[in-house]
Amino acid sequence: MTAPTDQFILTLSCPNRPGIVARVSTFLFEKGCNILEAQQFDDTESGRFFMRVVFNVATGAATGAEIRAGFAAVAEALALTWGLRDKADKRRVLLLASKFDHCLADLLYRWRIGEIPMEISGIVSNHARETYAHLDFDGIAFHHLPVTKATKLEQETEIWRIFQASGSEVAVLARYMQVLSDGLSAKLSGRCINIHHSFLPGFKGAKPYHQAHARGVKLMGATAHYVTSDLDEGPIIEQDVERISHQDSPEDLVRKGRDIERRVLARALSWHLEDRVLLNGSKTVVFRD
Amino acid sequence: MTAPTDQFILTLSCPNRPGIVARVSTFLFEKGCNILEAQQFDDTESGRFFMRVVFNVATGAATGAEIRAGFAAVAEALALTWGLRDKADKRRVLLLASKFDHCLADLLYRWRIGEIPMEISGIVSNHARETYAHLDFDGIAFHHLPVTKATKLEQETEIWRIFQASGSEVAVLARYMQVLSDGLSAKLSGRCINIHHSFLPGFKGAKPYHQAHARGVKLMGATAHYVTSDLDEGPIIEQDVERISHQDSPEDLVRKGRDIERRVLARALSWHLEDRVLLNGSKTVVFRD
Amino acid sequence: MTAPTDQFILTLSCPNRPGIVARVSTFLFEKGCNILEAQQFDDTESGRFFMRVVFNVATGAATGAEIRAGFAAVAEALALTWGLRDKADKRRVLLLASKFDHCLADLLYRWRIGEIPMEISGIVSNHARETYAHLDFDGIAFHHLPVTKATKLEQETEIWRIFQASGSEVAVLARYMQVLSDGLSAKLSGRCINIHHSFLPGFKGAKPYHQAHARGVKLMGATAHYVTSDLDEGPIIEQDVERISHQDSPEDLVRKGRDIERRVLARALSWHLEDRVLLNGSKTVVFRD
Amino acid sequence: MTAPTDQFILTLSCPNRPGIVARVSTFLFEKGCNILEAQQFDDTESGRFFMRVVFNVATGAATGAEIRAGFAAVAEALALTWGLRDKADKRRVLLLASKFDHCLADLLYRWRIGEIPMEISGIVSNHARETYAHLDFDGIAFHHLPVTKATKLEQETEIWRIFQASGSEVAVLARYMQVLSDGLSAKLSGRCINIHHSFLPGFKGAKPYHQAHARGVKLMGATAHYVTSDLDEGPIIEQDVERISHQDSPEDLVRKGRDIERRVLARALSWHLEDRVLLNGSKTVVFRD
Repeated sequence: MTAPTDQFILTLSCPNRPGIVARVSTFLFEKGCNILEAQQFDDTESGRFFMRVVFNVATGAATGAEIRAGFAAVAEALALTWGLRDKADKRRVLLLASKFDHCLADLLYRWRIGEIPMEISGIVSNHARETYAHLDFDGIAFHHLPVTKATKLEQETEIWRIFQASGSEVAVLARYMQVLSDGLSAKLSGRCINIHHSFLPGFKGAKPYHQAHARGVKLMGATAHYVTSDLDEGPIIEQDVERISHQDSPEDLVRKGRDIERRVLARALSWHLEDRVLLNGSKTVVFRD
Repeated sequence: MTAPTDQFILTLSCPNRPGIVARVSTFLFEKGCNILEAQQFDDTESGRFFMRVVFNVATGAATGAEIRAGFAAVAEALALTWGLRDKADKRRVLLLASKFDHCLADLLYRWRIGEIPMEISGIVSNHARETYAHLDFDGIAFHHLPVTKATKLEQETEIWRIFQASGSEVAVLARYMQVLSDGLSAKLSGRCINIHHSFLPGFKGAKPYHQAHARGVKLMGATAHYVTSDLDEGPIIEQDVERISHQDSPEDLVRKGRDIERRVLARALSWHLEDRVLLNGSKTVVFRD
Repeated sequence: MTAPTDQFILTLSCPNRPGIVARVSTFLFEKGCNILEAQQFDDTESGRFFMRVVFNVATGAATGAEIRAGFAAVAEALALTWGLRDKADKRRVLLLASKFDHCLADLLYRWRIGEIPMEISGIVSNHARETYAHLDFDGIAFHHLPVTKATKLEQETEIWRIFQASGSEVAVLARYMQVLSDGLSAKLSGRCINIHHSFLPGFKGAKPYHQAHARGVKLMGATAHYVTSDLDEGPIIEQDVERISHQDSPEDLVRKGRDIERRVLARALSWHLEDRVLLNGSKTVVFRD
Repeated sequence: MTAPTDQFILTLSCPNRPGIVARVSTFLFEKGCNILEAQQFDDTESGRFFMRVVFNVATGAATGAEIRAGFAAVAEALALTWGLRDKADKRRVLLLASKFDHCLADLLYRWRIGEIPMEISGIVSNHARETYAHLDFDGIAFHHLPVTKATKLEQETEIWRIFQASGSEVAVLARYMQVLSDGLSAKLSGRCINIHHSFLPGFKGAKPYHQAHARGVKLMGATAHYVTSDLDEGPIIEQDVERISHQDSPEDLVRKGRDIERRVLARALSWHLEDRVLLNGSKTVVFRD
């Protein structure tokens, strides 16, 4: 094994054809890189190939910049959509929340103990700071952006300004109860994660726990997905469920749902930040840990 | 404990009001019955009360017929919908299947080893006996009833005739791939169980595994429900799911689904036969084991 | 339905014999009580009967004190071990933690939003207040009680003093990493809940995640149990597991385990506080929600 | 994509070092092979690297024999432990059973519908053919080999003779209730799969369901593992669990366990036959589907 150095994560997708793995892995070998993890997927329906590689570099071998520059030529030859990140570079994440703060509190906790590799670039809410009186924001900028039908455009413009000004790369709707406009959804395409409190595609729209109760299902769930302009139809990243019974009132479902929501959202966000999620049309490829 | 005697299962539902449990349990005590299991549910939405009691009778105390006769007076006073069965009396079940026989084979196996308390009153299929060449039907009557659009009425008339003539009390659509008409659904109301190969209410209708694959869900499931004239909308008895991934083709989902389908259907049927499932409008109360 | 009044929870166990349910439910009916939930279990091995009843009282009917006084006579006649609580009376709970605070933070959050019905009577740790700098204790008394082998007796004496002085009824070892002595275990018998980070009886003792990694299991879990002098052998209240793989390092198991631990402990504590857990020798009867 | 040809599965393990993936994938590319699936694992503890590759070959390119011959040189240079199989070549599997036939019946069913890619080379039981009167063995050789303490050596000698004479490559203890001797375990090392009816390492040895009932666990499980001379300590391939409660008698656990056992064993066997399971000391690397 090489001496411990920085680790890099390379992700790529392209039309499938023979030789991709050989080309990529030979490039890495010649640059003095050692592959630590690699996962790939050949989608025989769409004809696309997806790959994620984690590698480190032998001491004294190439720098990140050199690897990036060299790989650009490989990528062009293979018509790759690709990304290369130093694993230690944490993405900046903007959290959006509303009144219910269980997902927000959970993400803050996981961030604090180093479980989710991110910097929090800010917290946006349509509720005031007092709503979260018991949460220690630890110096993170808080933006109170109330919203009405009449002011939605201005409010979203301000969200977008904050997103950009804070150097954010990802937005998380942590039970943010406002539907994003098509325009903002488009701007945040592929980098905005929502948690929907049902096992999609069942119970789209409002009050899914009440819908689930009314239908009498025996399991209920939550879904983390990328936000698109088509409400509750974005690419699904992660889902989970728990067993319920006739005894559970809608309030019981809300209570039990909090646990599912927070773990599903935390997983989806972690995987996104570790470059484990690749878009494949309206679906995702998730190279799980 | 009393000497071992027959066990009885009493189920009841009624508008809730104080004193029901006292009245029922006092009646049983006075008849020399010992309660072995009891479960109840007070639906505060519908205002209905549901109860299931398993009891046995002290040697020399009342007979089943005496208990039944005596309880009728209690039931009338409380406006109960009720049923009383000797646990040893097995219901007669008509199995309906089509080409895929994994649920049929599974139910036959569980019946043979005594896991599901039933007599099988017959097997109906729109495919010929050779389709199941490797299955030992053990003398159970097999009815080959092919069906086309033009002959559906006649075929269903024959199914109904067989159901009645064979003394059947329950029908099971064990991946029987024909939609029952409204008329037959109505006749079998509350005693016909279907297994739908999706986690309802997601992916209603045809080819649910292909729908699930196209949507990119991360869990897939199966649903056992009572058949109603409203397709895939009947009261749900049991559901289960398994985790899937982007790697799973529709064929993989079909394969993995077989395991979910057969265990969900077997559970739902067993619970129905043990009088654990009570109808509550368009939902069910399930007193699980 | 009666007008909304206080709800009461009655739990009892006794040697099984006919007539218990009749006697109890008739008593409640005569006092003007309406049963909202009832669950019972007849353990044919030990010959003991267990019951939990939630009821409310018609306006103008008996008070809690009257019901309690009246029931004492019933209880004596039937040789019951029993308890009767006003559901609105919250028990006082002493939380004990060490360095890792994920369970502590989780319980505080659930308490704050009203999910777990308790008052927190104090927080004890062998680490200093700064360890939890980011947690808002909201005025709850914090007791820093460092401990060494030499001072264990004195430290436990102080824990016991705090438990009594604060009016505590339950102690929770929320990843408190000190083994309680036999003496303190005995004093807290049946009212001290621990979370062990393995799926007991596998991987007792220290570093269970490392043990699980070394053995190569494919699922890992956590166990909430009552503390007894026999380490990791106390009556189990709740367990849960998650799937792991060969890729998971011991550190990954620690990370994934945090989610299991906190939900298993929260469930066990909630059920204990709702009088859903009854001791049955070295096992528990859990009337789940 | 190349025209559809035979698919091959390559598995390998070796001491980790840079360049393995490059070397292997470049070899395959140069031989006209297209990688369809690839999974790898770098065990940083043992310093070993594991890889599984599924590929097909362009029409007119190399034959399987040519690929095998060419790869031998690569393998020697890298000190690989490796295997290369035509995916269409089904392994021959010897099934061993005792009185309870739920796993046997299940494997036969899955084999018949083509779900598990194997040929069944024979069925061995210490019970007579009549025990399985309702199972259609479809011409598979059945060997009744009763056994006593005194005849164990002779009986195992006969098992081994049958295993060899029938060209078997895998043995499956499908609830075969005899403990294999150290000698036979050694001969079948790495190719004999057992299903143990507990969630190992909990409840080793006899009557695990009764042990689980006595301990009062809230989940129970089953474990498929390779047989070694150290009873119930072999490398674990797959495990699963289901929730149980205080209501479940040991007989209920036996019943519920059948479902877990058969799906865990079927998964483990399928994965073994698809070369998804690689031995890593006393553990396994499982490249799941």
